[in-house]
Amino acid sequence: MNSRQDTPDHKFHRKALQVKEAQARVIEYAKLLDGEEVPLNQSCGRFLAEPVIAPHPFPAFNRSGMDGYALIAGDTKDCGQDRVVWLEVVDDIPCGAVPAVSITSGTAARIMTGAQVPEGADTVVMLEITETREEGGKSFVGLRKPQQAGRNITQEGFELKEGELVLSAGWKIAAGEIAALAALGVHTVKVLRRPKIGIFATGTELLEVDEPLQPGKIRNSNSPMLEALVRETGGEPVMLGAIIDDLELARSKVQMALDSYDMVITTGGVSVGDYDIMGDLVRENSGDMLFNKVTMRPGSVTTAAVRGGKLLLALSGNPGACFVGFQLFARPVISLMQGATLPFLPEWTAVLGADYSKVNNYTRYVRARLEFRDGCLYAYPAAIDESSVMVTIKDSDCLIVVPPEERGLSTGAKVRVLKLPGELQG
Amino acid sequence: MNSRQDTPDHKFHRKALQVKEAQARVIEYAKLLDGEEVPLNQSCGRFLAEPVIAPHPFPAFNRSGMDGYALIAGDTKDCGQDRVVWLEVVDDIPCGAVPAVSITSGTAARIMTGAQVPEGADTVVMLEITETREEGGKSFVGLRKPQQAGRNITQEGFELKEGELVLSAGWKIAAGEIAALAALGVHTVKVLRRPKIGIFATGTELLEVDEPLQPGKIRNSNSPMLEALVRETGGEPVMLGAIIDDLELARSKVQMALDSYDMVITTGGVSVGDYDIMGDLVRENSGDMLFNKVTMRPGSVTTAAVRGGKLLLALSGNPGACFVGFQLFARPVISLMQGATLPFLPEWTAVLGADYSKVNNYTRYVRARLEFRDGCLYAYPAAIDESSVMVTIKDSDCLIVVPPEERGLSTGAKVRVLKLPGELQG
Repeated sequence: MNSRQDTPDHKFHRKALQVKEAQARVIEYAKLLDGEEVPLNQSCGRFLAEPVIAPHPFPAFNRSGMDGYALIAGDTKDCGQDRVVWLEVVDDIPCGAVPAVSITSGTAARIMTGAQVPEGADTVVMLEITETREEGGKSFVGLRKPQQAGRNITQEGFELKEGELVLSAGWKIAAGEIAALAALGVHTVKVLRRPKIGIFATGTELLEVDEPLQPGKIRNSNSPMLEALVRETGGEPVMLGAIIDDLELARSKVQMALDSYDMVITTGGVSVGDYDIMGDLVRENSGDMLFNKVTMRPGSVTTAAVRGGKLLLALSGNPGACFVGFQLFARPVISLMQGATLPFLPEWTAVLGADYSKVNNYTRYVRARLEFRDGCLYAYPAAIDESSVMVTIKDSDCLIVVPPEERGLSTGAKVRVLKLPGELQG
Repeated sequence: MNSRQDTPDHKFHRKALQVKEAQARVIEYAKLLDGEEVPLNQSCGRFLAEPVIAPHPFPAFNRSGMDGYALIAGDTKDCGQDRVVWLEVVDDIPCGAVPAVSITSGTAARIMTGAQVPEGADTVVMLEITETREEGGKSFVGLRKPQQAGRNITQEGFELKEGELVLSAGWKIAAGEIAALAALGVHTVKVLRRPKIGIFATGTELLEVDEPLQPGKIRNSNSPMLEALVRETGGEPVMLGAIIDDLELARSKVQMALDSYDMVITTGGVSVGDYDIMGDLVRENSGDMLFNKVTMRPGSVTTAAVRGGKLLLALSGNPGACFVGFQLFARPVISLMQGATLPFLPEWTAVLGADYSKVNNYTRYVRARLEFRDGCLYAYPAAIDESSVMVTIKDSDCLIVVPPEERGLSTGAKVRVLKLPGELQG
């Protein structure tokens, strides 16, 4: 028996911050990382370091929207079902070619969809409503209907003017952005570097994932979960394993990690009680502690500190609390470091799909499934959502935010939900 | 001048399929790929090849949910504010340890959160409501309140029973799944192989993304877009460049690609008109054509064929049409090949946020932005959504499905939307 039970009183009396205030404290240390050039085809999911301006108009020329003939609409004004107007075909413009001649009254050019409309022409007539004849070695196109100027031509700069803002700094790149950048010849993109996030767990009870189970022990599932979450957020996880409950070991591990990486996330060792080494480590140097209690469930013991300008986020060892702590505190920091403009989980309103009866004096973040019905969004709380429960994390699309002191919520109540990353099937 | 204008009539009279029927034809050829073992930490985004069954209960032992004392609730029934019941502390069980002795009446064990509850004990009492004393070299814990059996203990198997289904085959792996698999010691995961998708563009007008602009030409933006879309869908894109409009070249490229990869996607060369080499290539061998016209805008010329059991999907060269064609036909095939159970874009109902006036005799897939307001979903059509327009793809969250013959839709109308991949900010 050791003296662990003589827990000093201050361990039980931490000053609790509201979630918003705690978030404000951590994001102060989310400093923008350096930019780096990446090839366009490796830029998906990254955030632009600087705005992209159109280097030329797009389309870069007046473009035909049809297979047919480019001509002057005015030439067709006397057309009629029995009055064919014949125009001499003076050019043939496939895609990618440059028109050889300008169109003047009485002439037309055969043109393909996507090809450059020749000077002089002001309309493109679709092939299907034309007829042709050859005479004296010349080709003629015939029309029986007056045509309107401007039809089937996409004007130069219709999508983008030269110098127009295409994408602002902080914009996240996906397939549509790739198309726009490719069209403009942007083959390398300046994005912000991915933050390197050191991750380790504390707990003498922890086994590696590939170790056989041993009595009284559990496998370290939080580290792999955090690894996946960091990657999903665009960070580069650096896995530092699990350490036994030893203050000196934790101290040197934290220091090494803070020296080497952009941020450090730990899991375990922050609960009020025995062997709470991360809590002790941060309390020791109260000058750099940002908070060690947040008015939330799960994860009230979530702790954050700053050393050398770098953030140490000590999450609970309870899987549910670790997950929620990551989403509320680590995600915005990792996103902001990459220049994201919308670092927080999207916050929506939903209709509660089932009663929720738990009451708490802290705000509760309840794992839930979202479902769309007839244009409305319903949230179904997980059947079991204790902070220690891990198995329902995978089934959750959102966290329902249950305000403190709420005397239970009934089916049909409007609730705020924080959308978790991932596709809804609903 | 060549004879291209003598376009045979059958080019203008393709038999058009409904989208659902065309989808049904392509997914018939989405054959499940082989399974492969991947390390757990590389399994995110992959689909399980086989169900995962819990190899042991989880938790694997009765687990303490508190720092405190494990004891027999019945021992405390006579407690009172002035009647302290003292129990001898016979063990100290940190996390990861195995209890040394069973608890019998009159004894208790100091225990930590997450530690294994000893035999005999039926409740855990939180540290904060206990007191301690030492006497004759022994430690005692005192209580002033009767305790209930079963409190603060998570029973073995509470989350998962041994043999219980954890994840079914076809389940997509994300962070929550990683946690569950890690906890169960599943350190490698059997997933389906990523399909290799050959991608090339046709068009004499196409420049590479890093080439300077030339008069009349455009950069190949569809291939990089398709590359990003294939990757987003879990496929492995194989970039085969762009070829000029040459039937023989296209034929050999298609054949080589079908021999080497699981599916081939092309862009360009399918419009009704000149140089529509992909169309010609497929028409040549009408026996293996699945369709060459679909009753949809954009992308009505979308063409599909099968050779040697492998799918050739020839998408329009118009960026908007290429994008929609990918989402409706390529995405489900690539998803199904990986074993996905929900291969199609999620279909939701939304409220139209602005009038939409275009009328068509085909179903129109209109790029739109989604917004949540007070629990309801609103869809705002893109200002410009011509099939040739590329710049609004990046701003779209969904495709509004506008049925044929609709005489324009008014603000407030209920519409069906197909959710595009990516996070909504709303």
